[in-house]
Amino acid sequence: MSEQLKYEARGVSASKSEVHAAIKGLDKGLYPNAFCKILPDVLAGSDKHCVIMHADTAGTKGSLAYLYWKESKDLSVWKGIAQDAIVMNLDDMACSGMVDGIVLSSTIGRNARIITGDVIAAIIQGAAQLMSDWAEHGVELLSAGGETADVGDIVRTIDVGFTATGRMKRKNVMDIDIKPGMVIVGLSSSGQATYETAYNSGIGSNGLTSARHDVLSSYYKQYHPESFDPAMNDEVSYTGNRRLTDIVSTMHGSFTVGQLLLSPTRTYMPVMKPILEKHRDTIGGIIHCTGGAQTKVLKFVEGLHIIKDNLFETPPVFDLIKEEGQTSWREMYQVFNMGHRMEFYTDAETAKSIIDIAAQFDINGKVIGRVEGSEDSYLTIKSPYGSFEYRDA
Amino acid sequence: MSEQLKYEARGVSASKSEVHAAIKGLDKGLYPNAFCKILPDVLAGSDKHCVIMHADTAGTKGSLAYLYWKESKDLSVWKGIAQDAIVMNLDDMACSGMVDGIVLSSTIGRNARIITGDVIAAIIQGAAQLMSDWAEHGVELLSAGGETADVGDIVRTIDVGFTATGRMKRKNVMDIDIKPGMVIVGLSSSGQATYETAYNSGIGSNGLTSARHDVLSSYYKQYHPESFDPAMNDEVSYTGNRRLTDIVSTMHGSFTVGQLLLSPTRTYMPVMKPILEKHRDTIGGIIHCTGGAQTKVLKFVEGLHIIKDNLFETPPVFDLIKEEGQTSWREMYQVFNMGHRMEFYTDAETAKSIIDIAAQFDINGKVIGRVEGSEDSYLTIKSPYGSFEYRDA
Repeated sequence: MSEQLKYEARGVSASKSEVHAAIKGLDKGLYPNAFCKILPDVLAGSDKHCVIMHADTAGTKGSLAYLYWKESKDLSVWKGIAQDAIVMNLDDMACSGMVDGIVLSSTIGRNARIITGDVIAAIIQGAAQLMSDWAEHGVELLSAGGETADVGDIVRTIDVGFTATGRMKRKNVMDIDIKPGMVIVGLSSSGQATYETAYNSGIGSNGLTSARHDVLSSYYKQYHPESFDPAMNDEVSYTGNRRLTDIVSTMHGSFTVGQLLLSPTRTYMPVMKPILEKHRDTIGGIIHCTGGAQTKVLKFVEGLHIIKDNLFETPPVFDLIKEEGQTSWREMYQVFNMGHRMEFYTDAETAKSIIDIAAQFDINGKVIGRVEGSEDSYLTIKSPYGSFEYRDA
Repeated sequence: MSEQLKYEARGVSASKSEVHAAIKGLDKGLYPNAFCKILPDVLAGSDKHCVIMHADTAGTKGSLAYLYWKESKDLSVWKGIAQDAIVMNLDDMACSGMVDGIVLSSTIGRNARIITGDVIAAIIQGAAQLMSDWAEHGVELLSAGGETADVGDIVRTIDVGFTATGRMKRKNVMDIDIKPGMVIVGLSSSGQATYETAYNSGIGSNGLTSARHDVLSSYYKQYHPESFDPAMNDEVSYTGNRRLTDIVSTMHGSFTVGQLLLSPTRTYMPVMKPILEKHRDTIGGIIHCTGGAQTKVLKFVEGLHIIKDNLFETPPVFDLIKEEGQTSWREMYQVFNMGHRMEFYTDAETAKSIIDIAAQFDINGKVIGRVEGSEDSYLTIKSPYGSFEYRDA
């Protein structure tokens, strides 16, 4: 089965082209090429300010957390799911230049028959704990509460989303204007930052439908049919060989499959704040490598050849997914961040300073590529596994 | 089976007590007895202003819309679902005194295998159309866009939520301070307001899991198993006698069951704006009768006896639900608004003016009850079907 058909069979549209068609013609905001939609300041009415309101969810990582919780009884996994949903918002907003004073609201849908109240408490109180932890690292957030809906006829297990609202000076908006000659700095998605309490596998919150079905075994189909769409083609559901409790040995230590796949999405906020304070004017664009992963930048450029020829060594979690799913390397770079989830387009000098600032947070940074002029836009990834060209994100 | 057990079997917690336990101890905001959580103005830093960020969803009304769409191929039903989710936010915020300058963001989760792109377009473009329609009636809203996630392993069909953010002067906050001697004005949830294009059944967005299973027949269980939780006890799923296309004759005309159950939630925003402008100081509280329905006010009072003895005549949609589900009248008033979704606690003179303002919008208003002092708080509903006492919302 082709990778495209595999996505469709799993109820995922790889390209989001339908969603883009649905919003075609709608207002794109004040800075149409910014990473997030930038709104006029209708909240306080200042023409020197702007507003971002942004929504995201933990996606099917919630289903994986459900399996882990059922198997281990370990409630702490749900705090990670809150982190996944929150960080998917925060780090997008940071790419637009917003690193402060953000209000967060949750939207949780659950099947009350199988998701108990202590899970909801773990998510809501986990989110509060994260906000308090991050405040100590300079990231000020405020919780607005949220909605928890009992909708077992719609949600099989649990769906966790957050929405974030912030306001900033328009002069601080990080519009994307990438130019030939710029270098690309990537900041590692894995390792352990000074503000993290354990090794982060780097998985993030994208590609988790693929990862779960490719890695996990049919055991989960048999014992937890509520964790996936039962109408899914049998050939694509839980086709791997692993249990969440299986041990994987890596150069960073031994982890369970569950620990690697459920590692909470790292926020880059604490490190992006000083980077933006110092270098806002010399950065041409910041890309959060989420949907589309290493190809995401293609959504924001015209007439450029993006060359990524010095990517990070692939973190073990992606090797595991690649091996179990027998996914092509070309595809892996389109679905998973493969080593860095945040990248900066800038000059060589600023690049060096960004890497230095990141190092203070124990986050590896390096120049992973460069930008050249070109008639049509495309991306070349040169990796140990081959050279791949992409025309669309 | 008791009504309590019926809820539980349907994956719904009637009281939300688990959710309240989960958020116990978390900050309640600047005005702990306001209808919405009121936050300090972290967005613009003014101590004279405050912020509300609020989330809600269309709940299982989305599953009903799915059935209607599958049967009729009529995409227009999805604009109604956008309206349901948006209005559940707006009308809560209006109860806190916020009737202007609100930014909206959507969070949609879908199973891409069965929910096509044109449904997403109908929701997103329908929301944009609604905002533009309501602007003509004085309600200024701004769309921030939103997130559409393909999560077929979590969402059986589609889950539609909106989150809303607004900012206002603290002196305009409508804190709830209900006193003995006040009268209660209800504004009808059904009929056709000047800003509506058709008869509104008054159903709103609460109790739809009950309504769908109580009214619809086992035909839907057989042909659309994706519309409900298959693990649900057979005794409580699709236990009614109706198809969505069945005709119901009422004093307001003939409608299909689908039209009555899917009637989009009326927003009271256009009428609440002039009411608040004129009477903010003499209103002691505004209650949006959502979860808990006619008992909702009990969440906001202490040492009061709330007497509702002149409620609106029950709109036909609720007679249909009552009849099909053989639900007790006592229960009906706790789950469905039964005639008015918005109620004001005020003096007799203001009450008269509120009713006059509502009349200009072709919305029926009347004094539906009064407030008396009492040692413990409780509600008495005196209806043609009996007198019922409630101690908790």
